[in-house]
Amino acid sequence: MSRPFLLGVLGGMGPLATLDFQHKLLEATPAESDQQQLPSVVWNVPQVADRQKALAGLGPSPLPQLLQGIEKLNQAGASHIVIACNTAHHWYDALSRASAAPLLHIVDATLESLVVQKPQRVGIIATKGTLEAGWFQRGFAAQGIEAVEPTPEELAEWFVPGCYAVKRGALREGGVLLSLLADALLARGAERLVLACTEVPVALRAVAASSLAQSLDPAQALAQRCAKIWLAQRHSYLA
Amino acid sequence: MSRPFLLGVLGGMGPLATLDFQHKLLEATPAESDQQQLPSVVWNVPQVADRQKALAGLGPSPLPQLLQGIEKLNQAGASHIVIACNTAHHWYDALSRASAAPLLHIVDATLESLVVQKPQRVGIIATKGTLEAGWFQRGFAAQGIEAVEPTPEELAEWFVPGCYAVKRGALREGGVLLSLLADALLARGAERLVLACTEVPVALRAVAASSLAQSLDPAQALAQRCAKIWLAQRHSYLA
Repeated sequence: MSRPFLLGVLGGMGPLATLDFQHKLLEATPAESDQQQLPSVVWNVPQVADRQKALAGLGPSPLPQLLQGIEKLNQAGASHIVIACNTAHHWYDALSRASAAPLLHIVDATLESLVVQKPQRVGIIATKGTLEAGWFQRGFAAQGIEAVEPTPEELAEWFVPGCYAVKRGALREGGVLLSLLADALLARGAERLVLACTEVPVALRAVAASSLAQSLDPAQALAQRCAKIWLAQRHSYLA
Repeated sequence: MSRPFLLGVLGGMGPLATLDFQHKLLEATPAESDQQQLPSVVWNVPQVADRQKALAGLGPSPLPQLLQGIEKLNQAGASHIVIACNTAHHWYDALSRASAAPLLHIVDATLESLVVQKPQRVGIIATKGTLEAGWFQRGFAAQGIEAVEPTPEELAEWFVPGCYAVKRGALREGGVLLSLLADALLARGAERLVLACTEVPVALRAVAASSLAQSLDPAQALAQRCAKIWLAQRHSYLA
């Protein structure tokens, strides 16, 4: 651990979500000058095979391209790396093994934020791949939290078209579809919602969805965790 | 020129302006999927010595830190590099010599956009360093355009405090000050304004300044130039 702090961001999935994550880093860091802001290097290369299609067995694996990004971020001197995409955490173990810099996991950061509020039932809005991987559900179970998940019909009718609408820039259209899903999970007893796909918070904000008040954004939790590490080291780095 | 397209962005000056530039890249690129967006690697390390202070002889040179960024971007495989800060173009020649990838100059991109409209008098809002360097004025002169510059008093009373207000997040306060300067240059006969400091467009938007309608943002012109290069190569890259 002799490398000076430099956050590597494995982005591009999608490019707008990568910018959103960078904004969250700025928001999470109290700073009175440019020099106090968190230093980062961002691999924002969106020519990565589609993660949802790969996990559905309908397309090639993005792993080779993700490994290339991890290699570049390490070469650039990253001391810590984050993946600015929930679904891509499917390849977390393989990427982690290939990286000299530690990879901070988005689920760990989310649970750290979530347990403070001690909810009993928490909804998860995520891709089929993220839901089937079960990371959030296992993390919840370890804290005695019950997971409220979308049905296959809700995923097909609201979630998937909502996400692809955001990816092509139709934020309001995506927001309307994803709000229907958010409201359905709250109606089934969720006290809080984890918006575990980077397109979802962007879309819900575009329609000023009331469900945002009960929502937790894992990307924001991850940004806050990064800022905490930077703030603990900033003094010596700037001295 | 065998490297595949990858835009290197030398950012961090400041970190918010670097995000703004990345948004402009997205806006400048027509795309229907993530994969069609421009690939980039962003060196967003704000621990760079203050450029305005260095040029005023009041602080250390940022050149060593800028050279480090250029080296990292080349190592990451950048095929083209841009500097997301007008004032840092003071070190353009030294950075260009140290870079295998060509550096696109923000003044070239701005002139390319400006000459289409054939203005006769154009105002420049920029740091003292950028104004004294004379890049924009020489470019204008070569096109038969007369430059309208801020007075030393306008720089001291409106420009400098306006920029530092933006850097500490006081966008409206910065917008009020920078609007006074924009209106003064228009009153002295400028038909168009070049907002040649990345803080200025952000601040003018925060107060919905009427002068924006006559303004050209060099960062936007630079993003459009990058997008043009990417679009010309995209087909072969995605094939």
